[in-house]
Amino acid sequence: MADVILNLLPLTDEERAAFEAAAPGCAQRFLPCMDPKGGPIPFEHPALLKDVTVLLGNLAPAVLAGARNLKWLQTWSAGVDAFLPAGVLPEHAVLTSAVGAYGPSVAEHMFAALLSMLKQLPLYRDGQSRRAWADLGPVKSFRDLKVLVVGAGDIGLKFSAMCRAVGMTAVGLKRTVAACPAELDKVRALCELDVWLPWADAVLLVLPQAPETVHLMDARRIALMRPDALLLNGGRGSAIDTEALTAALISGTIRGAALDVTEPEPLPADHPLWSLSNCLITPHVAGGLHLEGTRGRIVSIALENLKCYLAEKPLHNRMK
Amino acid sequence: MADVILNLLPLTDEERAAFEAAAPGCAQRFLPCMDPKGGPIPFEHPALLKDVTVLLGNLAPAVLAGARNLKWLQTWSAGVDAFLPAGVLPEHAVLTSAVGAYGPSVAEHMFAALLSMLKQLPLYRDGQSRRAWADLGPVKSFRDLKVLVVGAGDIGLKFSAMCRAVGMTAVGLKRTVAACPAELDKVRALCELDVWLPWADAVLLVLPQAPETVHLMDARRIALMRPDALLLNGGRGSAIDTEALTAALISGTIRGAALDVTEPEPLPADHPLWSLSNCLITPHVAGGLHLEGTRGRIVSIALENLKCYLAEKPLHNRMK
Repeated sequence: MADVILNLLPLTDEERAAFEAAAPGCAQRFLPCMDPKGGPIPFEHPALLKDVTVLLGNLAPAVLAGARNLKWLQTWSAGVDAFLPAGVLPEHAVLTSAVGAYGPSVAEHMFAALLSMLKQLPLYRDGQSRRAWADLGPVKSFRDLKVLVVGAGDIGLKFSAMCRAVGMTAVGLKRTVAACPAELDKVRALCELDVWLPWADAVLLVLPQAPETVHLMDARRIALMRPDALLLNGGRGSAIDTEALTAALISGTIRGAALDVTEPEPLPADHPLWSLSNCLITPHVAGGLHLEGTRGRIVSIALENLKCYLAEKPLHNRMK
Repeated sequence: MADVILNLLPLTDEERAAFEAAAPGCAQRFLPCMDPKGGPIPFEHPALLKDVTVLLGNLAPAVLAGARNLKWLQTWSAGVDAFLPAGVLPEHAVLTSAVGAYGPSVAEHMFAALLSMLKQLPLYRDGQSRRAWADLGPVKSFRDLKVLVVGAGDIGLKFSAMCRAVGMTAVGLKRTVAACPAELDKVRALCELDVWLPWADAVLLVLPQAPETVHLMDARRIALMRPDALLLNGGRGSAIDTEALTAALISGTIRGAALDVTEPEPLPADHPLWSLSNCLITPHVAGGLHLEGTRGRIVSIALENLKCYLAEKPLHNRMK
């Protein structure tokens, strides 16, 4: 029986024609469902889901429960943690992500945040708001700065390539260690985290949401960092114990933090992190569709995978 | 007659010994006179200046008037505009600068400022101070960003090398055009400025103070820039007509500015620039001794030049 495809991606006319051409024998419904910033908008047609075998795009897990015939879900997100718990997808359904689409966007944002912190630009901005022409003293050079990339995947490698291009040294940690990628000086196993934390001038977290990454950076591990080091998070807020980080930033256990993700999210208006001058907070904007090119990359990944799927070839970015 | 050397540089014991060893037949007096941030401290021994033939370090022009036997001034600054007007130095005195010492410092600071502006980090910092979890929309990628470096000297080339390392295209303008340096995609004559301003996503000014650079960026030239472009100044505040820039930032003629130098300086507390959210102001801190390594580079330049001077070889960084 032919597949029934529900395509929720934001497409140009040309791209839509390419999806139609890729699946000539299938029923394919186009209901663009992504808001301009990359989030899902409410899905108004739950009854449609019953017959769907292929879903291209993200839906809330509760809505997805109606897609009992689903054989394959291609998300537009890089993270797929919402779809991994048992029961969210039918047992044999395949899950693929858009990992790779967001790398340039998140990597560039976190790199800019790192450089900005090194040059004390957030503190100078605070001074500007007080109209204060006040020198804040010495800063660190990019040269020979030691950067630890925790989660050396797509984003982490693009970040470390930029760090190295301006003279930094980058070590990456990942779950499964193979040959060292060209973007890193060294790659090591994630289980060596405690060994590498005291080495780094800056630590970037770009980890997927998973039980083993929740509160990976707890009070003990934050205390392993150098007192002049910076902690950056561009992955999931849950990778850091927020209360422990807040205490460490107040007491000076570490020099500063730059967070694009927090736990909880949004960060409540009365949270003490907001007012810490050594913490730069951006509201989960490193990824999404903030960067021109991201949408196109998502669409390419999905189209290529649709062709593979219909040709019964292995899919890219398979997560389940 | 042997030279009388007055050495005002901040030196380690080893460096001082190296200066003594370099000039064995000369009287050399060591009176470190640079404050930790790179500025001069008041000079308490004006009577000493009468016999001095070689001065290593910066003094205020009025104080320098007492050094009537001066044959050579080696500044610790990269800019020497204060010493160029007729009468400040004896007619035949040679002037050399510390150009090259500050390149990494200023280039890194301005590069961080550019990336920070591209990712809207100053505006997110303003949002943070209001405890606002608010998305500010799309941003530009580093990839293929077009950067115009006005003044492709030491700082400009170090800046453009970093820009190109993260995917940008860099064109440099300089007074005298020779072969294109490896740090640039293209080098052109400064007189082509009006042609290149409409091309650039970002324009960096790193020009020395000189009659022909004063208000180089006036209202007419600012209007030649693209409405989404950024103007950065890491050279001298006088290169921009501040009133014209203020008007352009208010009316949206250009997207934003990042200034480490202003005219006047310090920027008065009641100046309207302070409150413009699309203008990032740092208080002339890109250079000085803010970066580890700068002091050592200044000392090396002066020591090398002292050896050349005593051996009657041509001096480096000759400005007059």
